[in-house]
Amino acid sequence: MQTPDELVLSCPIPISRYPVVTLAHGGGGRLMHQLIDRMFSPAFDNPILRGGHDGATLAVNGARLAFTTDSFVVSPIFFPGGDIGKLAVDGTVNDLAMCGARPMYLSTGFILEEGLPMEHLWRIVRSMKDAAEEAGVLLVTGDTKVVDRGKGDGVYINTAGVGVMEHDLDIGPRQVAPGDALILSGDVGRHGIAVMAVREGLGFESSIESDCAPLWVPVAAILEAGIAVHCLRDLTRGGLSGALVEIAETAGVHIRIDENAVPVRQDVQGACEILGLDPMYVANEGRFVAFVPAEDADATVEVLRATQVAEQACIIGSVVDADPRGAVTMTSKIGATRVVDMLSGEQLPRIC
Amino acid sequence: MQTPDELVLSCPIPISRYPVVTLAHGGGGRLMHQLIDRMFSPAFDNPILRGGHDGATLAVNGARLAFTTDSFVVSPIFFPGGDIGKLAVDGTVNDLAMCGARPMYLSTGFILEEGLPMEHLWRIVRSMKDAAEEAGVLLVTGDTKVVDRGKGDGVYINTAGVGVMEHDLDIGPRQVAPGDALILSGDVGRHGIAVMAVREGLGFESSIESDCAPLWVPVAAILEAGIAVHCLRDLTRGGLSGALVEIAETAGVHIRIDENAVPVRQDVQGACEILGLDPMYVANEGRFVAFVPAEDADATVEVLRATQVAEQACIIGSVVDADPRGAVTMTSKIGATRVVDMLSGEQLPRIC
Repeated sequence: MQTPDELVLSCPIPISRYPVVTLAHGGGGRLMHQLIDRMFSPAFDNPILRGGHDGATLAVNGARLAFTTDSFVVSPIFFPGGDIGKLAVDGTVNDLAMCGARPMYLSTGFILEEGLPMEHLWRIVRSMKDAAEEAGVLLVTGDTKVVDRGKGDGVYINTAGVGVMEHDLDIGPRQVAPGDALILSGDVGRHGIAVMAVREGLGFESSIESDCAPLWVPVAAILEAGIAVHCLRDLTRGGLSGALVEIAETAGVHIRIDENAVPVRQDVQGACEILGLDPMYVANEGRFVAFVPAEDADATVEVLRATQVAEQACIIGSVVDADPRGAVTMTSKIGATRVVDMLSGEQLPRIC
Repeated sequence: MQTPDELVLSCPIPISRYPVVTLAHGGGGRLMHQLIDRMFSPAFDNPILRGGHDGATLAVNGARLAFTTDSFVVSPIFFPGGDIGKLAVDGTVNDLAMCGARPMYLSTGFILEEGLPMEHLWRIVRSMKDAAEEAGVLLVTGDTKVVDRGKGDGVYINTAGVGVMEHDLDIGPRQVAPGDALILSGDVGRHGIAVMAVREGLGFESSIESDCAPLWVPVAAILEAGIAVHCLRDLTRGGLSGALVEIAETAGVHIRIDENAVPVRQDVQGACEILGLDPMYVANEGRFVAFVPAEDADATVEVLRATQVAEQACIIGSVVDADPRGAVTMTSKIGATRVVDMLSGEQLPRIC
């Protein structure tokens, strides 16, 4: 048994500097990664966790399974283009898809706040049912907890998912290598702006809908086309920039992107300017990047564009054999090149 | 698209009577089962969910897997004999064990409240690490969310789990049949009382520790002994009575128990009297019941008693071929017989 002092000294996050958890510890940026890399990963260390991917890959009886989890705490719980229920289903479906696994089974853990209108719960449940049907998954097990008024925020939902890999590829950030092309599945920034617009009561809320959507169909399409996919990643917290920096650091490679090639809708760009946000960091819930061998880049774009959710797919960059390794550089709209970093603070709290 | 009125009318829980979610909707009693049976189960309906068990049974590539989830919202997060971290690991390990599955892999979803002392998070993480090692499971994937101050209560944890069945038995409430013996693994009521004692600042808190423990070892022992187990159930929310009523209703059988045979520690009994609680309904986190063929009852008790966590195992009742079907009756300590029902209100909120 450690004394309280020994406990404080053994904490891998310096308590004198970070005495408490802050919103930034959940924001997808630098502090969240510090918490994961220094505290969670070493404490729970095992070969599966070391994969550093959106989900775990398990070998069971000769089958390769993916296993993943996400909690959803979005505020408000209803927003243009979706709600917390659809988000909870699509989010975990997408994490499985990013492992290259066909999403099959989901669990659902509700944390309800006393006083949540029953009507809201019913809307959310129906939305989850519809989203599960759309994504072709079954909700097979669940749990319900209720916390006292003032100890939650209406409803939080955790979903965990199990999927099956029907190919022999090893898909993950460690497979990314110089020569890879980087493909983006569509325009960025809509989910975060849709949620922020409602939250802040801004006038453009009616026109910008979340991009929230299940992503297995486009992933299945490129796998079925025989593309030797190296890595897939959906662009949730931290947005496009956060995802790319994470992959560059994990793979130790230099990712170079062209800002001009990244589609951002004009209304989203305008909203970002009003809110002081950079669309490159804004969360999406129906967008992903794919790293594929350069020679497969055009075929990948073509296959993706044939699917509805990725009809704007395009090449936005590549992995280059040059310094700085473990980093992302971007040629900006005005032609300058700069290093893209993760945000250290919290850009948009409670976006998913 | 339904109008708001149509939405209200289509809600399977009558909104005029239950306009909002209450603590009792999460308490393991009548209202929670109504929510599950009327809203969640029909909305998410599929053959796997219909099993009505602690977890789902999945067939993947010839392997039989169990998949389960639980969120943990216990208050306070540290209590005698455990903390929310140990509870989150053992709780899901036990749900897998109750499916007759060897617990293998766990996911972890943290919902942290802004302002949680970093030291508390570290204590919880170390506790989860220790609990996972004790139970022989790997924490393979996770997620971290932070909610604003006042929108949580320190920390909530969801764990989902995957386990493997290494036998051909079909273990679940629907297998319970007249003639079965009912075996209880040990004394009841400790977890709930340990938590309540700290919460209420009662003096006996030092002497009563939670029974929180992983239960795969005793379950594996009876499976390895070749016992044809019909059903296993851990006695969490709703306690022994809640679990038995649930099973009696699902199986449509009459379970008869003898109150004198149910071990309750004297200090727990005393605390229950002070708090006005019935130990038969108080939550446990390291206790379970097993339904086995009558001829295997003695062997089951013997095998269980050889394991540390079930060394007080005993026969407490049987399933009888007599009315009332779908119900539990109990011969009380004073010799009277009465029907045992689920609680309709909330006995002990936030106990797990």
